[in-house]
Amino acid sequence: MDSALERLQTLSCHLESNDTASLIQSVRTAATADWRLPVLDADKVDKLKEVLLGHPKPEEQVRETKQKLYELMKDPIFRPHPYANVPEQRDLTLKRLKMVASLGILKMGEVAEQFKRFVAFQESLVLSDMSLAVKSSVQWGLFAGSIVFLGTDKHKKYYQDTDCLNILGCFALTELGHGSNVKGVETLAEYDHSTREFVIHTPNDSAQKMWIGNAGQHGTYATVFANLVVKGENHGLHPFLVQIRDPKTGQTLAGVTCADCGPKMGLNGVDNGRIWFNRVRIPYDNLLNRFGDVNKKGEYTTMIKNPNVRQNSMLEALIGGRVTVSSMALNASKLGLTIAVRYALQRRQFGNPEELLIDYLSHQRRLFPLIAATYAYQISVHYVISRFSNRTEKDARDVFLLACGFKAASTWHRSDTLQICREACGGFGFAASSRIGIYKSDADVDLTYEGDNTVLMQAVAKALLVEFKSYFTGTKAITGMLSYTYSKGHIGIFLRNKNFFVKRLHTESHLLDAEMLLDAFIYREFKLLRQLVKSLRTKVKNEKMSGAKAWNSCLDLVHKLAISYVERVTIEKFLEEIQKSDEGIKPILSLLCILFALTKIEGDMGWFLSNKYFAPVKAQAIENAINKVCGALREHALPLVNAFDIPEHLISAPIAGDYVAHFSDPKNY
Amino acid sequence: MDSALERLQTLSCHLESNDTASLIQSVRTAATADWRLPVLDADKVDKLKEVLLGHPKPEEQVRETKQKLYELMKDPIFRPHPYANVPEQRDLTLKRLKMVASLGILKMGEVAEQFKRFVAFQESLVLSDMSLAVKSSVQWGLFAGSIVFLGTDKHKKYYQDTDCLNILGCFALTELGHGSNVKGVETLAEYDHSTREFVIHTPNDSAQKMWIGNAGQHGTYATVFANLVVKGENHGLHPFLVQIRDPKTGQTLAGVTCADCGPKMGLNGVDNGRIWFNRVRIPYDNLLNRFGDVNKKGEYTTMIKNPNVRQNSMLEALIGGRVTVSSMALNASKLGLTIAVRYALQRRQFGNPEELLIDYLSHQRRLFPLIAATYAYQISVHYVISRFSNRTEKDARDVFLLACGFKAASTWHRSDTLQICREACGGFGFAASSRIGIYKSDADVDLTYEGDNTVLMQAVAKALLVEFKSYFTGTKAITGMLSYTYSKGHIGIFLRNKNFFVKRLHTESHLLDAEMLLDAFIYREFKLLRQLVKSLRTKVKNEKMSGAKAWNSCLDLVHKLAISYVERVTIEKFLEEIQKSDEGIKPILSLLCILFALTKIEGDMGWFLSNKYFAPVKAQAIENAINKVCGALREHALPLVNAFDIPEHLISAPIAGDYVAHFSDPKNY
Repeated sequence: MDSALERLQTLSCHLESNDTASLIQSVRTAATADWRLPVLDADKVDKLKEVLLGHPKPEEQVRETKQKLYELMKDPIFRPHPYANVPEQRDLTLKRLKMVASLGILKMGEVAEQFKRFVAFQESLVLSDMSLAVKSSVQWGLFAGSIVFLGTDKHKKYYQDTDCLNILGCFALTELGHGSNVKGVETLAEYDHSTREFVIHTPNDSAQKMWIGNAGQHGTYATVFANLVVKGENHGLHPFLVQIRDPKTGQTLAGVTCADCGPKMGLNGVDNGRIWFNRVRIPYDNLLNRFGDVNKKGEYTTMIKNPNVRQNSMLEALIGGRVTVSSMALNASKLGLTIAVRYALQRRQFGNPEELLIDYLSHQRRLFPLIAATYAYQISVHYVISRFSNRTEKDARDVFLLACGFKAASTWHRSDTLQICREACGGFGFAASSRIGIYKSDADVDLTYEGDNTVLMQAVAKALLVEFKSYFTGTKAITGMLSYTYSKGHIGIFLRNKNFFVKRLHTESHLLDAEMLLDAFIYREFKLLRQLVKSLRTKVKNEKMSGAKAWNSCLDLVHKLAISYVERVTIEKFLEEIQKSDEGIKPILSLLCILFALTKIEGDMGWFLSNKYFAPVKAQAIENAINKVCGALREHALPLVNAFDIPEHLISAPIAGDYVAHFSDPKNY
Repeated sequence: MDSALERLQTLSCHLESNDTASLIQSVRTAATADWRLPVLDADKVDKLKEVLLGHPKPEEQVRETKQKLYELMKDPIFRPHPYANVPEQRDLTLKRLKMVASLGILKMGEVAEQFKRFVAFQESLVLSDMSLAVKSSVQWGLFAGSIVFLGTDKHKKYYQDTDCLNILGCFALTELGHGSNVKGVETLAEYDHSTREFVIHTPNDSAQKMWIGNAGQHGTYATVFANLVVKGENHGLHPFLVQIRDPKTGQTLAGVTCADCGPKMGLNGVDNGRIWFNRVRIPYDNLLNRFGDVNKKGEYTTMIKNPNVRQNSMLEALIGGRVTVSSMALNASKLGLTIAVRYALQRRQFGNPEELLIDYLSHQRRLFPLIAATYAYQISVHYVISRFSNRTEKDARDVFLLACGFKAASTWHRSDTLQICREACGGFGFAASSRIGIYKSDADVDLTYEGDNTVLMQAVAKALLVEFKSYFTGTKAITGMLSYTYSKGHIGIFLRNKNFFVKRLHTESHLLDAEMLLDAFIYREFKLLRQLVKSLRTKVKNEKMSGAKAWNSCLDLVHKLAISYVERVTIEKFLEEIQKSDEGIKPILSLLCILFALTKIEGDMGWFLSNKYFAPVKAQAIENAINKVCGALREHALPLVNAFDIPEHLISAPIAGDYVAHFSDPKNY
């Protein structure tokens, strides 16, 4: 740990202490020695529900939003219709969306202030149908969000029509040729000062807007991202409001060509489409001009001179979408787990007498770590929501990173969870009526949209590098995402790691120890970060590689670092949550936190061992500890999924109830 | 390694040597020092195609079968119809099946002898549509197979009608209450000697036959598994041919109730259904009486007295289904990889100039190990097919195990492959036109049907234990599935493992060394097997657990052992294939084999390190080696997927070709 460690030690003296000692002590004493916890009664389940609803204490509006939607979704139109074909699914989704809009819960004018309510809104829709939730997020998240966050006062005239669906909006950023690489977008918006209009144009087929939700059929307006050209100079991407269809006839307007993206592996209630513009003229006021504008003299003006910074600022303003996707993914996971656990609690196979599925270690090993991770990520995502809601310019970069990291982690978690739940329910997991498989297919695009996960992970690692560099070059104090990692208390981790005795420790009390677990994650993240820095430097300086090539050759490390960051933050936030939680639920939360940490360590044991952080004897003990924790959680499986708080009428899968009675009727399926 | 090792050493003297030394030498010298291989020209691709078609040299009939079907599937009816709803999908699938039947390729009378042709038939159908392939496998695999393998000469009268689809058949084993646990099946077949009839009866709703392909709509006959009761005595499960519908009217016959399983997350071209029998009388001859019969005196007769053995023999006779499923899963993987690689070879993102996706290490790391694994499993599955085709009573158990193990491994591989390919194609991976996502959803039930993978893995581990025990108790010579593991040459592995120097070796030539890699897999399998034996013994003897409880508490180990077995066999067979392959393709096959082995080791590095088989320094070198092998494979990605030999008209995904041109037309999707 050489000179960097010494610097850290020196620097750490003037960083404030995070006082983790007391936190960790409270966790350590919460769980009993044999890991068996008292029954989770209704009162404790209620307290777990509170935790999952989010701290600080969720606003009444959040509860009210959920309750109103849950009530609405008792209407038969919200029942699953798996026999519907693609056009029927689209019609149905639009009908549902209109009913949701008629409640008048969301108001564009309040979106910025009431982000938590928006998230609650989207989460709730997920429980009815993914297509409904996604069509809603296109309307009120992407389209409305672009007007609210990228527009100015003059665009408020669109609010009411958007809220009541008189305008159905699209968010047209991605092109056929460029998705992740936003800089490559080619659509043009040339300013014509003589008429004070912008001319929106698709210069070639690879610049057609692609995957645009609502563009296939229902959308009447679109926020179109295009390169603003003023007096021959290209000022980079800017957002423009463009009407694309006549709301009365449904016909596209002159100069606009829309095409369908066709059926998809899921989410067929959403009409994704493509758009071409052939020199479409739009009025001056249709530039969403918060970050860049054209003045009365016909000159480009902006408060952010650097075009890259300007573009990033625009996209960061829309980062709420990523946060919402994380929450939506977690709710889909909760639905899957609720159904799978309920099934496992009644399905018997093998043995004499036959055993419940949930009593098999193999089944516990599949489901329980997913329950733990759902709690863990939900707590972190509430932290991200809270940081987002209270963000200032100063911590925008931090919030951006948290949003990227947790979007990727939550959606990958969702994908794994639904896949494993589907497998854990056998043939029933494949039936549409069980819902799990349908959600797996419907939701799968969340790994891609709002930023491809693999690309987001690179963004996370890049920002960690920037933070690291500015710290060591002394240009910035560590106050952001790395503060915990670099803070005073944790220098000890690197010293302890040299301790032969600690590496080999494998008593239960040691393996239960939250400090030991958190240390492991901090150590991994920091070591990977240093390794990446060193590796990049060597490749660029000694091997004379280009920066891009060096980066590419380190992508395995980059990905690992980003995951390590997310997991470290997750455990950190989980521990903080435990510290402030009610005494009655501390033990169960501790057990979940420990299971999350242990299974993540198990999944990366090769790293911990090859970096000699653990001795082999400890690794083996961790495997056993996971089995033991799974056993201890067995009795609490049902209350733990009950705390996900999904209303009975929205669970609806026959296998979550008395499925033998259900299937006794040949008319049912 | 104590006394067991000594015993092995002693015993190994009189086991024949497998002469692996020369094999390994040939592999070691095949790849060049810098891992760069010569271009794979058309001639080499042809040779790779031969390898993937299967050794010994595939029969002309296999080629002919594929060619005939490929030709037929040029008909527009075989084009994807993703807009179809469930009833339309079912109609379409039946129409396609009838066209396939009209070719007259399959003849039930030849199925037993021409298993390879049957597999080729099923594989080919996969490339058109999973539903078609599954409906076909229900008809000619499960239903026809039950008549051929469980029936006798008197049942040959059904052959012709089945071949030409005058009879559409079901295979009715699974019940609502019991899937994996076949012993729990409750349907009754009481023999009435007065009329020489069997009375088929569903005693309760949990005994309704469930998930039965063809039962929802089209099936006219079913092979029904029911408990044969003769003179009040239950002789366990036996198969009966029962007509369920009138082929002219489509109406169910008296006493038969059919219900639909409803829509599923995929595979909606197959009409899965449920069946109840209310004292349905069937003639004496409808018992498929190969393994058990009722004589003229009305007494039960069988050549296998033990009911468990009898039941297993019946089910083992149908094991070809599992082998076929493995091959089908691999073909779905090949389709996904072909599309994803072709896309990655034209899609550019980021960089200046923009880089091809395939040039990103992260992309190589996702796709190339899957290509390697597809080659690896295909070679092994050909071995399983060959063992199955030539099986005798003596090695039935071995074949059963190979079929179970590779069914699970191939289908999990298929699931991972399609998921990763779908993600690697971004939004396009989600589009139905790209096919990958559709295949992911359609095929996903292969993890469950023909034996739930988790349950199959337990069967594999159990059989390994039996083999191990009979070996050490001296009741049996090791000739079967463990022979390689226990053979003379490999005692050295356990000795070498004690060598501090070898553990730490990390030169490239060492990491390339097939012997080193195979050793690692043999070591892991054997150590896990011993650990499982020891653990079970301790729990039963010392801790006084019941056998079932002890087994349950070891399920993590059980699962790991089964996977280790499959992976060891896979590498073994891959090395044998390389040894006998043409000199020109040895280097590329070696590289694929090495990548397969290295990535499997990487995925389980925690185990290898915690068991001190590798030193940390070697583990780190393996990570780097994988990156290097991926880099070396970059140039060969296209020829490697070309060797999967999927005809252009069956690839059909726009993103596998010039997708910008395709999407230039608004009418296309």
